[in-house]
Amino acid sequence: MKGLVIDMEDCIFCKIAGGIIPSASVYEDDDFKAILDIAPAAKGHVLILPKKHCADLIEIDPDVASKALFVASKIAAAQKKALKADGINLLQNSGEAAGQTIFHFHMHLIPRYENDNLTIPGENLSYAEGEAEEYAAKIRSCI
Amino acid sequence: MKGLVIDMEDCIFCKIAGGIIPSASVYEDDDFKAILDIAPAAKGHVLILPKKHCADLIEIDPDVASKALFVASKIAAAQKKALKADGINLLQNSGEAAGQTIFHFHMHLIPRYENDNLTIPGENLSYAEGEAEEYAAKIRSCI
Repeated sequence: MKGLVIDMEDCIFCKIAGGIIPSASVYEDDDFKAILDIAPAAKGHVLILPKKHCADLIEIDPDVASKALFVASKIAAAQKKALKADGINLLQNSGEAAGQTIFHFHMHLIPRYENDNLTIPGENLSYAEGEAEEYAAKIRSCI
Repeated sequence: MKGLVIDMEDCIFCKIAGGIIPSASVYEDDDFKAILDIAPAAKGHVLILPKKHCADLIEIDPDVASKALFVASKIAAAQKKALKADGINLLQNSGEAAGQTIFHFHMHLIPRYENDNLTIPGENLSYAEGEAEEYAAKIRSCI
């Protein structure tokens, strides 16, 4: 079990979910923190991070499994309203071959617009100085 | 509410989940049916359908929200084992702009392999005669 403990201490998403590393937060409750992806597929792309560490969908914690889609539903509704998005993709990558780069379970919520021609994986955008916080504030105001 | 009732009567995923329309089924319980997508992104691509009709993530039924990721976890593990997949993408499209074509909430589980260069949306494959049933049987045997 020592390896597991070390992994969790080194896990960047444990640190972000626990507030040790700052992030553009859009939502927080006892079990989850939702933040903006810093390399978004579309601006306002959110990551939902459970505070309890688990690696992926296959090893998902039961408590995370029972609650994560309620959080996702709430944030997806806020993204549509705040960003005038026409649709939302929920994406969860399990395993490096599936595009997972951080081995702490997380779900992507990607705002979609008619004829945006977005493919996943696609080009990653970036935020200008202060822009991520503006997007986060917009989404927060609709939750 | 009349419109809603008519929608559900006409909903192909209600009919598949309810067993009225046949499908290559990989899993079934009281609340969900999981089937092979007939136009898969990769062979063994599964759709998880709740038996209770709801349109998308934003309008998800609470009972569906609390149970769907347990089903997804179980099937993802079986796909990895049965199909020797290296990873799994879970994808849920909400809204036409996000690629949703059938307005009954469903989650895609797509088997991934190292260097498969898959993009979503990408090319859709098809199964040869009898091949879908072989894939479904393989996955079922690992659940």
